[in-house]
Amino acid sequence: MEERTRRSTHPWTGRRIRIRVDEVERADGHRTTREIVEHPGAVGILAWDGTRVAMVRQWRHPAGQNLLEIPAGTLEQDEPPAETARRELAEEVGLAAATWLDGPRFYTAPGFCDELMHLYLATDLTAADGESDPDEMLEASWMTLDDAIAAVDDGRIIDAKTIAAIGWLARRLPIALAE
Amino acid sequence: MEERTRRSTHPWTGRRIRIRVDEVERADGHRTTREIVEHPGAVGILAWDGTRVAMVRQWRHPAGQNLLEIPAGTLEQDEPPAETARRELAEEVGLAAATWLDGPRFYTAPGFCDELMHLYLATDLTAADGESDPDEMLEASWMTLDDAIAAVDDGRIIDAKTIAAIGWLARRLPIALAE
Repeated sequence: MEERTRRSTHPWTGRRIRIRVDEVERADGHRTTREIVEHPGAVGILAWDGTRVAMVRQWRHPAGQNLLEIPAGTLEQDEPPAETARRELAEEVGLAAATWLDGPRFYTAPGFCDELMHLYLATDLTAADGESDPDEMLEASWMTLDDAIAAVDDGRIIDAKTIAAIGWLARRLPIALAE
Repeated sequence: MEERTRRSTHPWTGRRIRIRVDEVERADGHRTTREIVEHPGAVGILAWDGTRVAMVRQWRHPAGQNLLEIPAGTLEQDEPPAETARRELAEEVGLAAATWLDGPRFYTAPGFCDELMHLYLATDLTAADGESDPDEMLEASWMTLDDAIAAVDDGRIIDAKTIAAIGWLARRLPIALAE
């Protein structure tokens, strides 16, 4: 089912994202055009203190509202995702973690965007200083796993990466903590 | 934490998505620029036959690979999401459902995109004719809920909406089927 790219153009480039338009062709000869949002990739962090997960509430301009999410952030140029995760955990919620476990990776919107989200489980938490981003204003809080699951199901959490992360944590936590 | 838009421009418009750049200002006077991918919104359908959920595998050009996902699609202009869901279920997997339950709604990538995803649980399934999209080539299949959960955790499923949907189904199914 693969589509081979015959020609690519970049009609718009922003600060963080860029638009690519590919003329593609399938093996059966069918041709069409694909519009792709190029994104550097991102991380999301499940910071678990033994009974609660760290959350942030922030204004999400595309959604036009404040959203409740796990700490997260975009990869800087040439930054390994694990380093982004450490940086964002300090910046967004003022924490460092002695133990990191790689979680699942997934595409947030694979129909039109190449953003790959890397999840991490961060445990053995201590306070840390992070330089906050002046373009971000965040309220940090903590939630129990039961409350986070309830928040997914009652609509207090409406962010895809956070929903995916909480579901994974609910299945994974007993295994992860035993390892 | 709200940001008020002082000025908007649309530097690029595609077939399905459009770029908006907003100059925004917070209540504390801080100003910055937000790049937003405007998207019409989308639906995802959990089609449940009593023991299995319908899945599709398709080439996702932004990801450069075939992905395993629930049936899904983008809203046409002025199309109610429930209508999109009925249309996509017929188009993508050749099914109609006598019973529809509204699932959660969530933003797929709220940091830079306004796409809102509407999930539905479709049951009491029968065969239906749908006009397939010539730009899409799909392989339909069925998975048990246990296998779908395993596929999320072992990396066979790496699509955010499908991960969110399977997690919700695992919690919701016993309740939904009893109603």
